[in-house]
Amino acid sequence: MVQSSTDFKAVILAGGSGERFWPLSTPERPKQFLKVFGGESLIRQAVSRLEGLVSPENVYVVTARSLVNATKRELPEIPAANIVGEPMRRDTGAAIALAVGLCGEGTMGVFSSDQLVGDVKGFQSVVKKAVAVANKEPKIVTIGIMPTEPSTAFGYVNPQCGRFVEKPGLQKAKGYLTRGFLWNAGMFIGRIDVFKEAFAAYAPDLVKLCGGGIRRTCQLRKAYEPLPRISFDFAVMERLSDAGGVAVVPGDFGWDDVGGYAAFDRYYPHDDAGNVADGDCALVESSGNICVSKGPKIRVLGISDLVVVATKDSVLVVPKSRAGELKKIKA
Amino acid sequence: MVQSSTDFKAVILAGGSGERFWPLSTPERPKQFLKVFGGESLIRQAVSRLEGLVSPENVYVVTARSLVNATKRELPEIPAANIVGEPMRRDTGAAIALAVGLCGEGTMGVFSSDQLVGDVKGFQSVVKKAVAVANKEPKIVTIGIMPTEPSTAFGYVNPQCGRFVEKPGLQKAKGYLTRGFLWNAGMFIGRIDVFKEAFAAYAPDLVKLCGGGIRRTCQLRKAYEPLPRISFDFAVMERLSDAGGVAVVPGDFGWDDVGGYAAFDRYYPHDDAGNVADGDCALVESSGNICVSKGPKIRVLGISDLVVVATKDSVLVVPKSRAGELKKIKA
Repeated sequence: MVQSSTDFKAVILAGGSGERFWPLSTPERPKQFLKVFGGESLIRQAVSRLEGLVSPENVYVVTARSLVNATKRELPEIPAANIVGEPMRRDTGAAIALAVGLCGEGTMGVFSSDQLVGDVKGFQSVVKKAVAVANKEPKIVTIGIMPTEPSTAFGYVNPQCGRFVEKPGLQKAKGYLTRGFLWNAGMFIGRIDVFKEAFAAYAPDLVKLCGGGIRRTCQLRKAYEPLPRISFDFAVMERLSDAGGVAVVPGDFGWDDVGGYAAFDRYYPHDDAGNVADGDCALVESSGNICVSKGPKIRVLGISDLVVVATKDSVLVVPKSRAGELKKIKA
Repeated sequence: MVQSSTDFKAVILAGGSGERFWPLSTPERPKQFLKVFGGESLIRQAVSRLEGLVSPENVYVVTARSLVNATKRELPEIPAANIVGEPMRRDTGAAIALAVGLCGEGTMGVFSSDQLVGDVKGFQSVVKKAVAVANKEPKIVTIGIMPTEPSTAFGYVNPQCGRFVEKPGLQKAKGYLTRGFLWNAGMFIGRIDVFKEAFAAYAPDLVKLCGGGIRRTCQLRKAYEPLPRISFDFAVMERLSDAGGVAVVPGDFGWDDVGGYAAFDRYYPHDDAGNVADGDCALVESSGNICVSKGPKIRVLGISDLVVVATKDSVLVVPKSRAGELKKIKA
């Protein structure tokens, strides 16, 4: 059990470029605002699943400046001052350093705004375990997800040493499963002073954000401008694990990072021909497609294994097998 | 040369269900109103290519009642009384019988509202030839198009006897080309009394429309209701040719019936990967597609040989090879 609600603070990282679910998501309305999985937006779900574990005034959200107002509307119970917009994208290294500055002291957990969790009770119990470890040892604890398949879409973490490895090929992924590696879900729990020390040791560029003094727009812009675009994994965790400063708590709670349109196949019902159809879609002599309309009438005939998505102003057509390459599209 | 403009009357058949070019065309805005080939609508082009051959007051249009106003707007030079709406669809048999009644006397030519002609001078010269034949002999003259390939999309006509044959398979089509058969373009030229006699002999159901007295809405509805749905080819031409009453004038003037989306490949430029893109379309790592937008932003990645069409409220995706089967789609 978390010792007291005031000790534990949660940070939700809510950047996102809206590329993987274009045109449902856009830079102005990225993935965390999608309501396609489970009725509520992903960011709403991310905050709700922390209920009971952390009180709303201890929840912080780091998002893009342009998304601050939409985020406040989506999370009315979070104090407005806890929702902070980055002036530009500098990856998770800067975002977590900024979060450290916001949280001040105690123990903090970093979570994503755009993932799904099937078993919230299981999730909470794993987070509690991680907090307990973090409160006992001066380590950053990462939650490693029990893999359900040799996925090539995720990075892995070695539970022995806390060392991360990047997204592997299929062959390598199979080897990782044999060796008991877990999926890297980007969840980090640690005492705030431990985070600060790790930034000071391995990412001196970012450490000034950890002070918490930089909040005003112009200050943030000046501070962010020269920063490197580097992930927390690379900037801190990699070298911290070499130094024995990382602990891994395994988790198995129906986690899904909803990485792209393939997720529709996991969360939506299929017709007899294996199609997912959401909205005003009719599929004739077609199989294995994912067809999503947010308004227009979609009619398809004789197509297979395609993703077809239409909003009121945009249309996407891509084979399911290539739906992970949407960055190539200049919307 | 046509003897005098008052002798020759032209009838434009402008029904159409809007299926083959859905969603660009719809029942409310069928193919003849499409402006995608050559800037002007197909019906505008159909009338314009008769200029000099027939004066506007001798042009008649038989269309659907629901399309009368749109047709009048598109053809302002044609007297409003010459544009007549059928109360329901009864195929070309009834439409041509009604046209006979409208034209009264002289020589008339029946043309389609939704075809393209590349060589208008060539077209006019062939029509003049056909009119000359019709004025000399009590026959219905059909213009047979010189085939450019063994198409399976058109019916054929045997130029020896004027006998029509239905759309063949590829093997049969090749045989037809060897035997000198021509494409049936649905163009019929004849003296109006010859048309009337043919209807009287072979299609007594339809002959009452030939009198010209039935014009008022309620009269037309009452007259049309019991009529069979039968094409002029079947109702009249088939048996007339058996009786030696059909003459064929061959034509070679870049005729195209623009039967469906495949026509975009014939009339639009292609990018290096063989795609046609009309409107706000971007195709990434895609080849051989026909992509048409009337508003929305279409973005595709990794697809081949598909037709992708978007209007402000509808989206179509179908393989090019199956674009002729759009009737299967319930829009």
